[in-house]
Amino acid sequence: MIVERVKSGIPGFDELVNGGIPKRNIVLLSGGPGTGKTIFSQQFLYQGLALGEPGVLVTLEEHPVQVRREMASFGWDVRKYEEEGSFAIVDAFTGGIGEAAKRERYVVRSIDDIGEFMDVLREALKDTKAQRAAIDSVSTLYLTRPVSARNVLMQLKRVLSGLGVTALMVSQVSVTERGFGGPGVEHASDGIIRLDLDEVDGELVRSMIVWKMRGTKHDMRRHPFEITDEGIRVYSDKVVKGSVVRYE
Amino acid sequence: MIVERVKSGIPGFDELVNGGIPKRNIVLLSGGPGTGKTIFSQQFLYQGLALGEPGVLVTLEEHPVQVRREMASFGWDVRKYEEEGSFAIVDAFTGGIGEAAKRERYVVRSIDDIGEFMDVLREALKDTKAQRAAIDSVSTLYLTRPVSARNVLMQLKRVLSGLGVTALMVSQVSVTERGFGGPGVEHASDGIIRLDLDEVDGELVRSMIVWKMRGTKHDMRRHPFEITDEGIRVYSDKVVKGSVVRYE
Amino acid sequence: MIVERVKSGIPGFDELVNGGIPKRNIVLLSGGPGTGKTIFSQQFLYQGLALGEPGVLVTLEEHPVQVRREMASFGWDVRKYEEEGSFAIVDAFTGGIGEAAKRERYVVRSIDDIGEFMDVLREALKDTKAQRAAIDSVSTLYLTRPVSARNVLMQLKRVLSGLGVTALMVSQVSVTERGFGGPGVEHASDGIIRLDLDEVDGELVRSMIVWKMRGTKHDMRRHPFEITDEGIRVYSDKVVKGSVVRYE
Amino acid sequence: MIVERVKSGIPGFDELVNGGIPKRNIVLLSGGPGTGKTIFSQQFLYQGLALGEPGVLVTLEEHPVQVRREMASFGWDVRKYEEEGSFAIVDAFTGGIGEAAKRERYVVRSIDDIGEFMDVLREALKDTKAQRAAIDSVSTLYLTRPVSARNVLMQLKRVLSGLGVTALMVSQVSVTERGFGGPGVEHASDGIIRLDLDEVDGELVRSMIVWKMRGTKHDMRRHPFEITDEGIRVYSDKVVKGSVVRYE
Amino acid sequence: MIVERVKSGIPGFDELVNGGIPKRNIVLLSGGPGTGKTIFSQQFLYQGLALGEPGVLVTLEEHPVQVRREMASFGWDVRKYEEEGSFAIVDAFTGGIGEAAKRERYVVRSIDDIGEFMDVLREALKDTKAQRAAIDSVSTLYLTRPVSARNVLMQLKRVLSGLGVTALMVSQVSVTERGFGGPGVEHASDGIIRLDLDEVDGELVRSMIVWKMRGTKHDMRRHPFEITDEGIRVYSDKVVKGSVVRYE
Amino acid sequence: MIVERVKSGIPGFDELVNGGIPKRNIVLLSGGPGTGKTIFSQQFLYQGLALGEPGVLVTLEEHPVQVRREMASFGWDVRKYEEEGSFAIVDAFTGGIGEAAKRERYVVRSIDDIGEFMDVLREALKDTKAQRAAIDSVSTLYLTRPVSARNVLMQLKRVLSGLGVTALMVSQVSVTERGFGGPGVEHASDGIIRLDLDEVDGELVRSMIVWKMRGTKHDMRRHPFEITDEGIRVYSDKVVKGSVVRYE
Repeated sequence: MIVERVKSGIPGFDELVNGGIPKRNIVLLSGGPGTGKTIFSQQFLYQGLALGEPGVLVTLEEHPVQVRREMASFGWDVRKYEEEGSFAIVDAFTGGIGEAAKRERYVVRSIDDIGEFMDVLREALKDTKAQRAAIDSVSTLYLTRPVSARNVLMQLKRVLSGLGVTALMVSQVSVTERGFGGPGVEHASDGIIRLDLDEVDGELVRSMIVWKMRGTKHDMRRHPFEITDEGIRVYSDKVVKGSVVRYE
Repeated sequence: MIVERVKSGIPGFDELVNGGIPKRNIVLLSGGPGTGKTIFSQQFLYQGLALGEPGVLVTLEEHPVQVRREMASFGWDVRKYEEEGSFAIVDAFTGGIGEAAKRERYVVRSIDDIGEFMDVLREALKDTKAQRAAIDSVSTLYLTRPVSARNVLMQLKRVLSGLGVTALMVSQVSVTERGFGGPGVEHASDGIIRLDLDEVDGELVRSMIVWKMRGTKHDMRRHPFEITDEGIRVYSDKVVKGSVVRYE
Repeated sequence: MIVERVKSGIPGFDELVNGGIPKRNIVLLSGGPGTGKTIFSQQFLYQGLALGEPGVLVTLEEHPVQVRREMASFGWDVRKYEEEGSFAIVDAFTGGIGEAAKRERYVVRSIDDIGEFMDVLREALKDTKAQRAAIDSVSTLYLTRPVSARNVLMQLKRVLSGLGVTALMVSQVSVTERGFGGPGVEHASDGIIRLDLDEVDGELVRSMIVWKMRGTKHDMRRHPFEITDEGIRVYSDKVVKGSVVRYE
Repeated sequence: MIVERVKSGIPGFDELVNGGIPKRNIVLLSGGPGTGKTIFSQQFLYQGLALGEPGVLVTLEEHPVQVRREMASFGWDVRKYEEEGSFAIVDAFTGGIGEAAKRERYVVRSIDDIGEFMDVLREALKDTKAQRAAIDSVSTLYLTRPVSARNVLMQLKRVLSGLGVTALMVSQVSVTERGFGGPGVEHASDGIIRLDLDEVDGELVRSMIVWKMRGTKHDMRRHPFEITDEGIRVYSDKVVKGSVVRYE
Repeated sequence: MIVERVKSGIPGFDELVNGGIPKRNIVLLSGGPGTGKTIFSQQFLYQGLALGEPGVLVTLEEHPVQVRREMASFGWDVRKYEEEGSFAIVDAFTGGIGEAAKRERYVVRSIDDIGEFMDVLREALKDTKAQRAAIDSVSTLYLTRPVSARNVLMQLKRVLSGLGVTALMVSQVSVTERGFGGPGVEHASDGIIRLDLDEVDGELVRSMIVWKMRGTKHDMRRHPFEITDEGIRVYSDKVVKGSVVRYE
Repeated sequence: MIVERVKSGIPGFDELVNGGIPKRNIVLLSGGPGTGKTIFSQQFLYQGLALGEPGVLVTLEEHPVQVRREMASFGWDVRKYEEEGSFAIVDAFTGGIGEAAKRERYVVRSIDDIGEFMDVLREALKDTKAQRAAIDSVSTLYLTRPVSARNVLMQLKRVLSGLGVTALMVSQVSVTERGFGGPGVEHASDGIIRLDLDEVDGELVRSMIVWKMRGTKHDMRRHPFEITDEGIRVYSDKVVKGSVVRYE
């Protein structure tokens, strides 16, 4: 049985997942503040667009205007894709308030209404015929209601997977937290990518590990990565070990 | 007194339990995300079918369609067994919603209704004359009601054990959690198999240990295992020690 | 003043308590899952019967039928003692539900009714003229009401001690828990025996220590023990130390 | 200014507190299960009687009958002192229930009624003209109401100190707890004596340290002690250090 | 794309952020008690004034009078800037109570009314045409309502960012806390600067690390800094490592 | 700008704060049980009286009579200062109950009424024209209401600072607690002095560190101190390091 795969387009990453993320997988992208989760997911979507695969970015942390600006700073200009209808930003940040927000097409009024959230997402996915999606972050959806975490993830999984979309769910963990976002979400996802930023002898070190990926073999080592002017670059042939001890 | 045993069919595993899991034992299969719990329990059931022992798989985490697809990816095609009535999937995932769900025979509408859950399970066990069962995962049954954990496990134990079934109860623990799912369930089960995924010097290592198994002697060491294209393979003659320290 | 002692009959154990457990002591038998608490208490009761000392086993975790079967697997056949009236099983597991349960003589309908529990226990103790008893486990009595733990233990202590019974109270602790069951019960008991199962360099090691025993000197060292086909055997002349660090 | 001191009568202990506990001090006697707190306080009271200093023992953990029996086992026969009116046991254990309880003179019906408790205590102190007292344990008074801990201790302090009594308050801590009973009681007492039982290389070691003692210099080292047939013996010239690390 | 930057004016700091903090960034300034957070933010604002960039300081911890006095003690006299209208202190401390408070222009009556808080802040920002702001501390705004932390930060972000202001949000963490103020705020900010005060071999050591800074490369090392009579001075060419271990 | 300073009068201490505590500073005096907090604050007040600086001691832990006795035991006789009106004890301990309490002039009926507390304190401060004050302990004011801690401290700060008083706030932490009393109070104070009592190799060691002191440079090292017959003596030229590791 041949596994259909989605190319991340992130230099060095696809080697870690045997050529690409298995199609329809809903992958948790977990890490502390400053680890590069947002850049990873934007790069994943932009590379999809470049390959002709439409995508949807759901923003819960930042204004859509700022998102476009940030992506542009890496050379990822999404405006033409938005115009041609192959890319959409779902604005779950502004609540529709403010001048700029009024120009957005996909707006979630209140993230407390998970039903509305799902409806707007579904619409954006269908309109763009999305093959990729990123929710940045899924943690915000259950920040004040941790018991509902698994339920929210399950609903997302059904909608995304049902439409054949491969998706990244950004999971924010605290800088001191060693888990991936709690038992409810760790087990419900099809894959877990962990981004880390650790202080080793007074210096910050970036590293990444694929903890789980359903439907494929995956690399079992922790690799260093950099955030350059062109986004993330993973060094799949190098391994980070030694003084960084975790998950024990 | 001779102990009746059930062959797991998982290469290398039966050596750990003196030839097989004692019949009627209700065994906790505990581990963090990505440790292989789902694969272990699917392999256990499929090997039973191959040996002529009917089985039931209760799925709470994934769509029955996806379960069949995943099993097939390991070469475990359950469709003919479903057709001949010796295998059944109890769908406790969809709630009966969706086109695909309508084609399922055993559907639990709401997992909040533990009585209904037990009724559907009992029906599937009786119809198939099941000798094996797996609940993937039992943790989901009490995720939002931890105090009821022991009670749920006790009810399952009575139903399964009463029908002479040998069963695996998948217990999800968080990646940072060193227990097996809480005092309520650890003590209520007849056996505990722990699957682990640990980062050692920047590399992920899989290992397994049988912590407890009523009615038989069992191996007392931690062994490495692999997930191959054909499922799990345990190296019963190798031991994992050294840098992996746990349960202290 | 001469201390009356009860012989445990467990090979190697009586040496740890200066010849036997002081009569009327209510002893906490504490340990994680798989440590052998149930076997220890069954062996203690059976050895009493062999010495002509009647006993009562209160089962809260397993069906009385399974208890008899398990004891038989170690060669401890209690049926003749039940028939002659010197041994009784108090069924606090089935709630009186099921065919087999109907044949039980001492049944607690609901463990939430601690008064009823005490009444049935008292009746069984008096009928058998019990000199020994074991509650397996006492933890279940306050699992969902931890604040009532001390109170439950105090009531048991009054009933058992008032009737001159020497008793083991099985206290379940989680695999990661280093206490004996909480301050309420640790201090209320007359003795504490701790059973341990620890992973040392990839291998499980069984050990036992007598932490406290009122009315007698006791051994102050941790000893290895085994579970054989004939039950528990303690190596009172060997000491476990070194890599196993606890209680700090 | 000369400090009036109370001789503990416990061999080796008075050396630790510069000759004796300053009069009127209310001292916390803190330790885990099996550390010897009850023996220490009984010995303290009995030695007082031998020196002509009347005393009161408040028992919350054990039946007064058992207390007398235990004291006798160390050769501390309190019956003649009870008869001559220089010693009293306040029964805060039985609630006045049972035949034996009816023969007790000082009975607290319910420890939930702290006012009644104080009244009975005050009466016993006045009747005996007590110079010493021990509450075994004070923890039981606030076990289910931790926020009231400081308040209870303050009330006891006012009554005892107002009557010129020097007292030991037994404070039960869990085996894994490194504090002395919580901030509310640690700071409210005039002194803190900590008894410890630690496992070092597979062997239990008893040690004691005076953490605080108002109104006097005190020894600042941890000393070994033994429990012999004649009670506690402290080795004030030996120090326990090395592998036992605590309070950090 | 050229990044507009704001010069902190703090000797040695701008080297850490590639020349300055990117304009409009809302930066968390996190640290324990005594780490220098207040001095850092006052210095940042005063240096802005010296460069002709108006600023607003929101004080929640101290009286505006004391703030002016403290700033003056470092030679930062803000009175002329207040008079010419390029600097304003928002008094969220006094609640308008007291003689001195009556002379303040920007007063928040109750910090429980987040709407009023935002209104007063917005007014001060507009009046001064502020390009810089500091909230000292933002933690106080959600001290008693931790679940609202992210929401408060989001509102501040919208107001400040919408007016083109670059701001420091002082985040107080406990001396023992290794995070930056909780997941809700760590992820919501555009940058994180961590100030530390650690005891190493009996000596307090000050150090600083830039953990995250959107829109620019930043230094990845921990640097020592001093608090002198003229404020903070960072040693960007020295690195603190070795015995200070954190975030693991 | 010249900093006005208050001489502590505690031998060796003023060297740690560059000659004295800056006037009007509200300083947290934090430590576990038995660390010498009460002695430190009594010594601070008495030395003030000797220098002609009136003072107020608020006692929440002990009877005013006992406070006077304890101070006298160090040779600090406050009676003449009380008589001449330059010293006052605010009794927030007795609630006005008892004969001795009736002779007290400044009595707080209930510490649950923070308004009354502030009124009595303000009156005593004004009557004595206090320049120094000590609250022993401030922790007691919010023991049962931890969320109100910061609020209480803020109110005290306003009253004391408004009247030009330099004050010590005794903050009780548990023996195992490494913070200074929680984020609410750690950040709200103008200075933090930490007193420690640590067990090192079986011996108790006293040490002190000034963690924070607004308005002045301060010593950055941990120093040993002793409690002698004449009170506290700090060894400002010695440093405690090595085996005592904290705050990490």
